[in-house]
Amino acid sequence: MRILVCNDDGITARGLRALVEVAKEFGEVVVVAPDRPQSGMGHAVSIGIPLRLYPSTEFGEDVTAWACSGTPADCVKLATGVLGEKPDLLLSGINHGANFSISAFYSGTLSAAMEGAFEGIPAIGFSLLNYSMEADFSAAQAIVREILLLYLSQPFPAHVPLNVNIPDLPLSAIKGIRLTRQARGRFVEQFEKRIDPYGQPYYWMVGRFESTDTSPDTDLWALQHGYVSICPLLTDLTAHTYLNHWEIIYR
Amino acid sequence: MRILVCNDDGITARGLRALVEVAKEFGEVVVVAPDRPQSGMGHAVSIGIPLRLYPSTEFGEDVTAWACSGTPADCVKLATGVLGEKPDLLLSGINHGANFSISAFYSGTLSAAMEGAFEGIPAIGFSLLNYSMEADFSAAQAIVREILLLYLSQPFPAHVPLNVNIPDLPLSAIKGIRLTRQARGRFVEQFEKRIDPYGQPYYWMVGRFESTDTSPDTDLWALQHGYVSICPLLTDLTAHTYLNHWEIIYR
Repeated sequence: MRILVCNDDGITARGLRALVEVAKEFGEVVVVAPDRPQSGMGHAVSIGIPLRLYPSTEFGEDVTAWACSGTPADCVKLATGVLGEKPDLLLSGINHGANFSISAFYSGTLSAAMEGAFEGIPAIGFSLLNYSMEADFSAAQAIVREILLLYLSQPFPAHVPLNVNIPDLPLSAIKGIRLTRQARGRFVEQFEKRIDPYGQPYYWMVGRFESTDTSPDTDLWALQHGYVSICPLLTDLTAHTYLNHWEIIYR
Repeated sequence: MRILVCNDDGITARGLRALVEVAKEFGEVVVVAPDRPQSGMGHAVSIGIPLRLYPSTEFGEDVTAWACSGTPADCVKLATGVLGEKPDLLLSGINHGANFSISAFYSGTLSAAMEGAFEGIPAIGFSLLNYSMEADFSAAQAIVREILLLYLSQPFPAHVPLNVNIPDLPLSAIKGIRLTRQARGRFVEQFEKRIDPYGQPYYWMVGRFESTDTSPDTDLWALQHGYVSICPLLTDLTAHTYLNHWEIIYR
């Protein structure tokens, strides 16, 4: 099995290394990851600028690895377009930080998985609920292994990528694994205004997540209660239930 | 009515000017748009860098306008966070170029609309099927006016933003307005490899869109047949029909 591994924290991130280590147990690994952190890049792609691919020895001799100058979605496009054959599986992450609720829209980690799904590649994005670059991924690695074994025995269709969020707990404290829906919620944005040394204003965004969706079928509930959350994702953004909200208008 | 107008082609784009002109007929307009083109930025947000807002006189004295150093999603966050009260309506565009099928994921125009929906603001993204910065928006303006009148009389819920694509045709040749679903399709990526003056390779992405989804209920069909396409969008990425694909696993 040929496994493409991507992320959004960049090719030197500890979470990527942790994911590559587990992926190697399952097949031949190719890494294409951004050459710098690309958190919050959503599904951005590079338009109007060319891309670079730099060979990397970051993961030793048995792993082909490339650092890419583009976004996480660019990495997947380049991996499939430049490097040749389509991988059998795409793994993205392990992200340093959570990607539940509407964060799925902002996440570079998940845009890589989504991009895989667009290409018909079964894809899973992994995130650990710890934002530190020094986070301990050992429990997360055991969970990734468990989920990959499960996925290979009972796969999801390639057009349904998975969003896996792992609580930042010791392995023995993780209660289980649940399929979840995205909790309803929002970021309440606050901006801290500062004045630069030249007298001009600038703004730091300091949003905080807010949700009143306390239902036990959500990603948020699972994570708050010590479960790994797996949210299957759509690649069709249509709100199908509203397709008859207006009649066809003929002009 | 207070209307926030955003786009992803930047504050000087002709499509933005066309949208502002129509919006002014409906209420008080505030523009917050990127200070440079931000096409293909998806739902990217600026993390780890502060943002700038520059007052702009681009739209005359009766329109408050700001150029923002961030992405389209940043513009909406800043508009609601820094500028005070929540607008009654958010309009994004008119984009220079199409945003049908999976382009909805890559589109900065639609991420601004989506961001509005996250904030509970009724939101519509408009795109014209003409990529030229010199495109003629006069027919598109008439369509925007028609859709706004319709929207105000039969609104969609604020959590269902609309993705409007307008064919690049004279107004008399546009056959009508249809609610559509996102056509299934993909971008077939090709990369043109070139060598820079220093002997190093770089890649230009030259993807083309491909779809075998010929059903008449899609955005693609509508546009190919001279109709304006309106696709209502989800803000929940969960693939709900797969929530029972695996059992809960207790550990």
